[in-house]
Amino acid sequence: MQLSHAPRLLLGAGPSNISPNVIRAMSAPMLSHLDPEFIGIMDDVTTMLRAVFGTTDGFTFPLSGTGHAGMEAAVANLLEPNDILVSASNGYFGERLSNVAERYGVDVHQVTGEWGKVLDLDAIEAELKLHDRVKALAVVHAETSTGVLQPLDAVGELAHRYGALLIVDAVTSFGGSRISVDDCNVDFAFSATQKCLGGPPGLSPVFISKTAHQVIANRTSPPATWYLDVSLLQGYWDGSARTYHHTAPITMVYGIWEALRSILEEGLDACFERHQRNGIALRAGLRALGLDLLAPEESFVPQLTTVFIPSGIDDTAFRQKLLAKHNIEIGSGIGDFRGSIWRIGLMGENSTQANVLLLLSAFESLLPLWGFEVPIGGGVSAASKIFSQR
Amino acid sequence: MQLSHAPRLLLGAGPSNISPNVIRAMSAPMLSHLDPEFIGIMDDVTTMLRAVFGTTDGFTFPLSGTGHAGMEAAVANLLEPNDILVSASNGYFGERLSNVAERYGVDVHQVTGEWGKVLDLDAIEAELKLHDRVKALAVVHAETSTGVLQPLDAVGELAHRYGALLIVDAVTSFGGSRISVDDCNVDFAFSATQKCLGGPPGLSPVFISKTAHQVIANRTSPPATWYLDVSLLQGYWDGSARTYHHTAPITMVYGIWEALRSILEEGLDACFERHQRNGIALRAGLRALGLDLLAPEESFVPQLTTVFIPSGIDDTAFRQKLLAKHNIEIGSGIGDFRGSIWRIGLMGENSTQANVLLLLSAFESLLPLWGFEVPIGGGVSAASKIFSQR
Repeated sequence: MQLSHAPRLLLGAGPSNISPNVIRAMSAPMLSHLDPEFIGIMDDVTTMLRAVFGTTDGFTFPLSGTGHAGMEAAVANLLEPNDILVSASNGYFGERLSNVAERYGVDVHQVTGEWGKVLDLDAIEAELKLHDRVKALAVVHAETSTGVLQPLDAVGELAHRYGALLIVDAVTSFGGSRISVDDCNVDFAFSATQKCLGGPPGLSPVFISKTAHQVIANRTSPPATWYLDVSLLQGYWDGSARTYHHTAPITMVYGIWEALRSILEEGLDACFERHQRNGIALRAGLRALGLDLLAPEESFVPQLTTVFIPSGIDDTAFRQKLLAKHNIEIGSGIGDFRGSIWRIGLMGENSTQANVLLLLSAFESLLPLWGFEVPIGGGVSAASKIFSQR
Repeated sequence: MQLSHAPRLLLGAGPSNISPNVIRAMSAPMLSHLDPEFIGIMDDVTTMLRAVFGTTDGFTFPLSGTGHAGMEAAVANLLEPNDILVSASNGYFGERLSNVAERYGVDVHQVTGEWGKVLDLDAIEAELKLHDRVKALAVVHAETSTGVLQPLDAVGELAHRYGALLIVDAVTSFGGSRISVDDCNVDFAFSATQKCLGGPPGLSPVFISKTAHQVIANRTSPPATWYLDVSLLQGYWDGSARTYHHTAPITMVYGIWEALRSILEEGLDACFERHQRNGIALRAGLRALGLDLLAPEESFVPQLTTVFIPSGIDDTAFRQKLLAKHNIEIGSGIGDFRGSIWRIGLMGENSTQANVLLLLSAFESLLPLWGFEVPIGGGVSAASKIFSQR
C-alpha cells in the first residue's frame, strides 16, 4: 500500500506545490546532523537565506518548525515578561502574534487596522508615543488573511525613531516579494517554506539583526521555550563550534537548500517580477469577469489575491466543483472574511502564466453555474493582454 | 547542481537511514493541510501511533518538531509554574528534561542515578515522599547517552501510588522496544521519527493519557508556548471539527505514515524481536573482540549499544577511518562519557543481520591499526552463532 492520491494544483494561501527538484533533493541520502557534509549544507542555507532576506551581516537560519514556530520565537526571544509590545494588526495573523506574545507575559498593545487596508502609521505612532519605552513593534508584511502588502520602509523608520525593535511576519512575502531587512531596520523576521519558496511546510526561515542579537544576549533570564531559544540555536547553526542542540530535520533542510538555490538561480529580481506579473494578470482577469477584489491593486501582495464571493454563489460548493472538475484548490476566507472571500495564491513553483490562464478559464466555466454571468473569454483575454505587455 | 554526497550507513545514535518506501511516500503529491485526503492520512497516523504506543484510548499525534519539541510539550503542558516535578535522571537526556522544565518555572527535584545503570526505585520513592504533592515524575525509557533501558512497570506503579503523573522520554525506544503506555500508567510519552521508526528527523510522536488530558484541561492558565499547546493541537488532530492551528509539515506526515505502516506490516512482535536479536548478536561480537561494554546485557536498550573505547585508540581518528574506509558512521559519547565510549545504533531500517556482521568485520580490521589486537573472525563468528540460535 502506498499513498496514492491524485496530484492537485494548490492555488490557495499555501502550501503550494513543490518542484520536482526539491522533491529530488529531499531524497538525497540521509546524513547525520553533525556530519561535515551536512554542516556544509547548513552553511549554504544560512548564506542563501541572507541573500533572500536582504542582509549582509544578520544571523539567518531555518527554525525546525513551521511559520508559527518562527512567530513564537520572535516574541519569546526578543521580549521578556512585562516588556511592552505594540502589535499593529490588520488581519488574522497580526492578531495571532499578539495572542502568542501575551502567553509569554508580554504587555501587548494592539493597534487594530481595518482588514483589507494597509496600516495607518499615525495610529501606530500615537500608540508608540503613549508609552515610556516600547520594546518592540510588530507588523505583518504580507497579511495572509487579506492579501494586503504592508510597505516596510516607513514602519522601519518609525520603529527606529522610537527606539523599538521591529518584528516582521514575512511568512507569505519571503521569496515572492522583496524584503530588505537591512534597509528597513527590521530586527526579527520569520517566514515559512511552503509559500513562495516552493518547499514543503515544516521550516521557518528566520532573520535576526545584530541589534536584536545584542538585546537577546542581554536578557535577564532565558526565554521559557528551550526548543525555540535562538541563542542556543545560534550555537548550532553559526560559527565554528556547532554545539548540539537538537537533531535538525535533515530532509527538510535538503529541501530548503534546493528551494533557495532555485530562486537564486532564477535571480531574485526575475523571481519577484514573475510573482508580480502573474499576480497583476490574475487580478486583471478577475476584474474583467466582474468580480470585486478586496484591496486596491497597489496594496496587493503580488502572490496572494483576495476576491469577494459574488452573492448567490455557495462558497463550499464552488470550491468543491473547482477541485472535482479542474483539480484546483483555492483558499477560503478566515477570520473576519470567513465565507465572504476566496484567497488565490500564485506562489513559488505555482506562479506561472499557465496557472493564471487555467484558473481564469475555470472560473469562466464555473461561475455561470450559479447564475453569475461572465463574459466568456474575458478573463483570459485580459490576463493575456498583461502578459503581452510585460 | 544537486546535493550529491555519498550514501552513508548511519549506525550512530540516530538519525538512521530511512527506507526507500518512506522516501517514496514523501514524494507523494503535496496536499493542503485541511484537504480531506490529508485528514484521512492524519487519522491513519494517530491510529497507528496508538498501536505502537500500546494504548486503546489515549490521544496520540505527531508534533510538528523534533524529539526535543515533544520533551518541551510534556513539561509545558502538564506542569504549571511552581508545580513539583521529580525528574529521575541517569544520563544526558534526563538532565535536559529538568533544564527545560525549570525554564517554565517548574519546581524541579532531580534524582540523580549513576550513568550506565538503571534507576534506583528506592531513591525515587524517597524523593516522592519528601513532598506534599508531586505533580509529575519523569523518566527516560531508553537513555540515548548510555544505552540503558529503564523498565517502566515498577516506575509506573510508583508514580501511580504517589498520585504523580508519569512522563516518559521514549525517543530511542519507540518502535524498537515495546512500550505499553496503558499497562505502565504512562501519562505523557514523546518520541522522534529518526530512531527506530526509520523516518527522517522532524516529528515527535506524542501520547497523552485521559488523566493527563483532564489535568491539562483544568490548568489555571494556558502554557506559555502556543506552538506546543496540546489542547490547541488536539483540536487540529482529533475529532470532527479540525480547527486550524498551524500548517502541518505535509511530507513529514507522509513519511511517518509509511514508517508506521511498515512497522505494523512487519508486526510489532517481529519488529521488536528483530531489534532484540541484532542487538544481542552485536554485543556478543563486541565482547568476543575483547571490548568492554558500558552496561550489563540485561540493561541494554536493544537498539543502542555503548562500548568503552580501548585505551590507546584515538576516538576521532578511529571513527574517521571507519567512515572513510567503510562509509559507516557510529556515535561518539556525550556528557559524562564524551571521549570514552562509542554509541552503536541498530535502529529501524538499519537493524539487520548484514549490518551487524559488517560492523564487526570492520572493527576487526580497524582495531589492530591502533595496537588493540583482536581475534580476527572472532566477532563475526560470535554474532553468527547468535543468529543461528534465534
